[in-house]
Amino acid sequence: MVAIPRLYMDQPLAGGESLTLDQAGANYLFNVMRLGTGGVVEVFNGRDGAWRAEVVEVGRRRGVLRAAERVAPQRDPPDLWLLFAPVKKSRTDFIVEKATELGVARILPVSTDFTNSARVNRERLRAHAVEAAEQCGGTFVPEVGEMEPLARLLDGWDSRRALWFCDMTEAGGGTMPEVDGGAAAVLVGPEGGLSEGERGRLSAFPFARAMALGPRVLRADTAVVSALTIWQSRCGDWR
Amino acid sequence: MVAIPRLYMDQPLAGGESLTLDQAGANYLFNVMRLGTGGVVEVFNGRDGAWRAEVVEVGRRRGVLRAAERVAPQRDPPDLWLLFAPVKKSRTDFIVEKATELGVARILPVSTDFTNSARVNRERLRAHAVEAAEQCGGTFVPEVGEMEPLARLLDGWDSRRALWFCDMTEAGGGTMPEVDGGAAAVLVGPEGGLSEGERGRLSAFPFARAMALGPRVLRADTAVVSALTIWQSRCGDWR
Repeated sequence: MVAIPRLYMDQPLAGGESLTLDQAGANYLFNVMRLGTGGVVEVFNGRDGAWRAEVVEVGRRRGVLRAAERVAPQRDPPDLWLLFAPVKKSRTDFIVEKATELGVARILPVSTDFTNSARVNRERLRAHAVEAAEQCGGTFVPEVGEMEPLARLLDGWDSRRALWFCDMTEAGGGTMPEVDGGAAAVLVGPEGGLSEGERGRLSAFPFARAMALGPRVLRADTAVVSALTIWQSRCGDWR
Repeated sequence: MVAIPRLYMDQPLAGGESLTLDQAGANYLFNVMRLGTGGVVEVFNGRDGAWRAEVVEVGRRRGVLRAAERVAPQRDPPDLWLLFAPVKKSRTDFIVEKATELGVARILPVSTDFTNSARVNRERLRAHAVEAAEQCGGTFVPEVGEMEPLARLLDGWDSRRALWFCDMTEAGGGTMPEVDGGAAAVLVGPEGGLSEGERGRLSAFPFARAMALGPRVLRADTAVVSALTIWQSRCGDWR
């Protein structure tokens, strides 16, 4: 199998348009993938679908592509957000990769009462989302938010957005989401679970409900994939 | 939070029973977790539920526990098998960990026409399953089979076992499983997809059907978690 390199480039895409590669892009195409002039690349910018482009200039630290034709339409995910409490680094990276593949519009790291990890590197998470979109053939890159306290996010919550929360310490509870087609968010708490206070506050919201994730206790990263899968297969674009 | 160490021990469990720790177990409890005589451990053997046990003898390379009382009943997963084509090492380990958490009875690595990885270390995979069961509070450890060609496994397939296959190259196809409660298996092909021949053979089987995993192309490890989640939430013990 010969794979055509896919590259996210935040530049306007239209037929004949010149695209300027930065150092990382030039290194990837010319050194890693060993493309030369005339080499074929698939490019997307998150808005205009996927385009076939050709290498027209090869440089040491830069290069130029020319967009030729659109090969896939833009495909946006449903209006689904993922809120998650960051865990250790490799699993946080994994969560961002998986959420991008499964199809979410926004990824929001939240700090909760029992969150261990106080900070996340937003740029690194954003880079993981881009890489996952390149890898999975997507044309959309989810927005990655700054880490924010869950409490503050709930203060400003739009009640029209359904909020499905997964509390890892309560195996066996919860319900399955029903088709409704509207805006939604999935919140996966930290492995220590949500606090009494957080659970109480969530339970009082008419737009919030616990999602059932089976009788075994799942790790946070598993819970993210399972919860997004359940939502997508019942309410999202997997139906 | 103080976590009680959980340990899988393949020994009979009953009240008052002495349990002999091997070197790895002794090292974990006495050096890593720093338990001494009287320390409390939760033990399971995959058959008799979870038991509270106490340390009665501390040694350098061994030790003895005494089972005190059963703290959780035995809970077996549904009669669900996972068949997967091994990918690179870290993702294969991940697949075994996740399948154990999500609840499967058997994990069978299969070689397919487009499988890259020719061999797997069964003992390593088995150790990962044990660790995942310890971690997720389970009382069951899935059986891990020897790597086998998919074709040979299909030759001897019991037609009463439903086979749901996920073909990663065909985003958007397939159907969702319906509740039936019977024996089932989920097959996740390699990232290069199943071959024409494999797909043709599977499609001809009345017990086999493609499972829908949405419009984006998923990596093999994501597909495993998503497919097991969908089966569990529709036909398994997550309902």
